[in-house]
Amino acid sequence: MPEKRYLMTPGPTPAPPEVLAAIAQPVVHHRGPDFKQLYAECLERLRQVFRTESEVLLFGGSGTGTMESAVANLCSPGDRVLVVSAGYFGERWASIADAYGADVDHLRYVWGEIPSAEDAAARLAEREAVALFFTHSETSTGVVSDPQPFAQLAREAGALSVVDAISSLGAVPLETDAWGLDVVASGAQKALMTPPGIALASVSPAAWERSAIATSPRFYFDWERTRKGQATLDAPVTPPVSLVAGLNVALGMLLDEGLEAAFERHVRLGRACREGLKAMGLELFSPDDDSSAVVTAARAPEGVDSGELVLLLRDRHGVTLAPGQGELKGKIFRIGHIGYYDVFDITTALAAVELALIELGADVERGTAVTRALEAFERTPV
Amino acid sequence: MPEKRYLMTPGPTPAPPEVLAAIAQPVVHHRGPDFKQLYAECLERLRQVFRTESEVLLFGGSGTGTMESAVANLCSPGDRVLVVSAGYFGERWASIADAYGADVDHLRYVWGEIPSAEDAAARLAEREAVALFFTHSETSTGVVSDPQPFAQLAREAGALSVVDAISSLGAVPLETDAWGLDVVASGAQKALMTPPGIALASVSPAAWERSAIATSPRFYFDWERTRKGQATLDAPVTPPVSLVAGLNVALGMLLDEGLEAAFERHVRLGRACREGLKAMGLELFSPDDDSSAVVTAARAPEGVDSGELVLLLRDRHGVTLAPGQGELKGKIFRIGHIGYYDVFDITTALAAVELALIELGADVERGTAVTRALEAFERTPV
Repeated sequence: MPEKRYLMTPGPTPAPPEVLAAIAQPVVHHRGPDFKQLYAECLERLRQVFRTESEVLLFGGSGTGTMESAVANLCSPGDRVLVVSAGYFGERWASIADAYGADVDHLRYVWGEIPSAEDAAARLAEREAVALFFTHSETSTGVVSDPQPFAQLAREAGALSVVDAISSLGAVPLETDAWGLDVVASGAQKALMTPPGIALASVSPAAWERSAIATSPRFYFDWERTRKGQATLDAPVTPPVSLVAGLNVALGMLLDEGLEAAFERHVRLGRACREGLKAMGLELFSPDDDSSAVVTAARAPEGVDSGELVLLLRDRHGVTLAPGQGELKGKIFRIGHIGYYDVFDITTALAAVELALIELGADVERGTAVTRALEAFERTPV
Repeated sequence: MPEKRYLMTPGPTPAPPEVLAAIAQPVVHHRGPDFKQLYAECLERLRQVFRTESEVLLFGGSGTGTMESAVANLCSPGDRVLVVSAGYFGERWASIADAYGADVDHLRYVWGEIPSAEDAAARLAEREAVALFFTHSETSTGVVSDPQPFAQLAREAGALSVVDAISSLGAVPLETDAWGLDVVASGAQKALMTPPGIALASVSPAAWERSAIATSPRFYFDWERTRKGQATLDAPVTPPVSLVAGLNVALGMLLDEGLEAAFERHVRLGRACREGLKAMGLELFSPDDDSSAVVTAARAPEGVDSGELVLLLRDRHGVTLAPGQGELKGKIFRIGHIGYYDVFDITTALAAVELALIELGADVERGTAVTRALEAFERTPV
């Protein structure tokens, strides 16, 4: 295996050196002033990134943990919920809600399709639900949906809107309060540029009301205990203090760049990635438009197994992309361009894909992808 | 506040520079060979430290998370359980079991008392239970109980034994298999010398059987999903890869020292701490014997609020000790000597306590504590 590594998956993503330096600082006590100061700053920056006046709850855990927190804090056994899915992570909502004994109505699309708000509204009109669970950026397919119509139709149907924004937050526009999203579940290991281990959830006043009557058992991921602790900067359990220090630095970098600038950068990275792949002669799997700003998925060319391509890239060239998951296994590969990325990461990914496909005997156009990507990245404004 | 910090609480504890350097390495993908190799090594080292042939489950989360995993995976609503508590963390077992709708029989001792196995056996004889939850090292009081009689009486009564070994694992002897402990719940942020964010649980064959029929909802902390993932080194959720890299280094250091040597070091650290405090004229709260090898608790002298002492030490001298919790607030202070500690950490703590008590006008014996501690540390064998 080569010495130098390039992490280009849709998560975890590379952390900036400044973030790694912050997490390597000596451990501090979570109830002392050193930590409390950065905890307060971090929670405030999270509100800015989520664009909410509500408290953003911070847990030690993965994205799945914060998704579970939403189910556990909003649902009682037997509660009817609607899950809209079109990929691996959308289906996780259904699995978690099932595990909690919810009565799950599952509006399931073929992976890669774009869920329709009209379909969801029709389902809710047929069968009321306490909550609508859906996905902002479906990491397994590269599809980024617009959460606004889903939030609106949920509100109109008297259901809470709960969105998985794990790979989208900080990469593409998300307006928690302005769009009326009741719960935004996210994590720090994607566009927030922090090593994995921090789970996040914003909770609207309506969601707080619901959580007060929801009877599913919960303790570690209990929202109220966490809110009470955060209110006095006295976390109910020992938080992952080193990762929080890293997240605080990463959020500072993101806010210094500016959220709008970061969103524009992600759009241009997606554009560069798509144009480069097409120049090679590959067929895109994720939509060929500027909504695809988080992860670009492409079909492996005829006769090439995408899993083999990913392994070759990783083991011979040190470049880690993501293979297809579930029903897309062997068919697609995915390039994440989330967080600490610039256009030269895209050109590296493209150069490596081109090289590896040639090695696998595929018939690809050589020598144009990198230049086309650079040109596409330069086209502004978005 | 002074520049230099001394973290001397019973958790989180200082991480060695080698561990901090490991967590600051570039983020790797959790399904790639770099991570899988260290994940396998880490899981194997955990089995050595837990002294078990069973799989040790690794979660992103805090110690409370792994305690909750035990309740959620073993109990169905209405199941009768016995909780034995004599402090803050013992009572947490009761809170979690309550939250899951268990029928909790709570054998509650005054904080600082040493729970009696005979009492627990009598309770189980009166009222059967599916599990006995108890505490190995009660961090809030400094009392370390012997888990063996509790494991035995539980087995004899047909109950599973579930022990909180969060602050004890790696500091004092713990024989998961030889003592027949069904579940050992622990974390990496104490004697395992890693920044907080990793929760651990070993599960015996009998506990696996029970978990297969327990109906409490769980997903993130579900044992079976986690075991399946670990079996193929394919974690069911994104693990905290950077912290796992740190833990792997820390476990290597601990096993290089040797578990028995580490246990002896902790006994001697406790002895040094106790002799130093007594030389100052202070009264110990934790037992004055070699069982007190994790955290030493002492009463503040007449007229001194222990909380004030802790704040002065922290804010003027940069030395962080722990105050009393709950009903011991204001009365005791606690010096953690867990993990990355040597005798000079003890002498630093003692010198600082002596200085601060003088500043607070207390009548303490000056100039003997450090020397007495050094002498006590030298007495071997344990």
